[in-house]
Amino acid sequence: MEIALLGGTGDIGEGLALRWAHDTEHTVLVGSRKPEKAASKADAYQTQLSERGVEHDLEGYGNEEAAARAEVVVVSVPPQYTSDTVEAVAPALDEGDVLVSPAVQMARDADGFHYDPPESGTVAETIAAAAPAGVPVVGAFQNLAAGALSNLDNELTADVVVTGDDDEAKGIVRSLAEDIEGIRALDGGPLANTGVVESITPLLINLAMNNEGMHDLTVQFQ
Amino acid sequence: MEIALLGGTGDIGEGLALRWAHDTEHTVLVGSRKPEKAASKADAYQTQLSERGVEHDLEGYGNEEAAARAEVVVVSVPPQYTSDTVEAVAPALDEGDVLVSPAVQMARDADGFHYDPPESGTVAETIAAAAPAGVPVVGAFQNLAAGALSNLDNELTADVVVTGDDDEAKGIVRSLAEDIEGIRALDGGPLANTGVVESITPLLINLAMNNEGMHDLTVQFQ
Repeated sequence: MEIALLGGTGDIGEGLALRWAHDTEHTVLVGSRKPEKAASKADAYQTQLSERGVEHDLEGYGNEEAAARAEVVVVSVPPQYTSDTVEAVAPALDEGDVLVSPAVQMARDADGFHYDPPESGTVAETIAAAAPAGVPVVGAFQNLAAGALSNLDNELTADVVVTGDDDEAKGIVRSLAEDIEGIRALDGGPLANTGVVESITPLLINLAMNNEGMHDLTVQFQ
Repeated sequence: MEIALLGGTGDIGEGLALRWAHDTEHTVLVGSRKPEKAASKADAYQTQLSERGVEHDLEGYGNEEAAARAEVVVVSVPPQYTSDTVEAVAPALDEGDVLVSPAVQMARDADGFHYDPPESGTVAETIAAAAPAGVPVVGAFQNLAAGALSNLDNELTADVVVTGDDDEAKGIVRSLAEDIEGIRALDGGPLANTGVVESITPLLINLAMNNEGMHDLTVQFQ
């Protein structure tokens, strides 16, 4: 499968790109607003994998080009840019492509991090509002610490909660998530349930700040 | 230590009462608006423990009496009654007593459960607004499924996130939480961070509804 990571030069994009390239045969397309930056990051990821004995072509493109080439498009840009990014790539999306929403909008004050959802309710719903007809949106990967993903020496153990209104799209994303070693993908229900998933991320950061020896936390349910 | 469970005849109160009575030497005081109901439930819990070979006196009282006798008072009533309950027991609280907030306000629609915080921000802050001066409030136990607690055959593995502005009170509650076998208590920071903890509860319920074989979920961070 072809997976594009819009903003794939950022931290969560980097982590997902590295894991999919390391653990699977999927085509990983690193997207950026600046194609040359995407290409250089894709090269850097490839070098990092080569050093571990893993040969996997990663390609870097402008976000539009990456989206045009992919079936699954992960909107791994900061939350305030999701809407503009999806609008920019919308003409490049085909019916049946899947948009994935991994970002979380947070605010920070002296007490720590707080969930600070956008007016639309969630980042996932912001993306859905900007998505073209026939392109479903799936929420996933919000609770994976970028550091836990991108450090390939770190053995992952994480649950990923997947939300969405299109069961086929949700199934594709659950399967891609579980292709990464150590991830279990759980069905979180419809897209309207994404808020409770997004809101866990600030908790994970607060726990890491407040508890000795905890960092790059993931969450498990049992 | 003397622990009162206001609304200790309800499901989360029952679970905590049984676990503390089963796993510790703490005095467990079951509170209810109706003292006779509290006494009868305390007897029932005691019988259940006896059948497992555990002898532990549980006492049942009206909420005010239970609060007066305890150093730690868990407000395990439905979220809409927390404010009235705390106001009713306030005269019975001594300076240095600790109030604990385990409840979560949720709404349900066709999509599942959603976090539906009160106007004050969180249940914990609602309790803090009603608490007398010198009585700190600590958030804890929100993410423990009542069924996981009250079924003593169930071997618990759960993280409990503890929030509060008074470090000593938080320490007492963390210690009481870890006295229950299988619970690890984590510092979630100040009381203002309680919202992200409360909001996990609807996610746990949604996951149990949407995923085959999952029920009475707890959460772990690692």
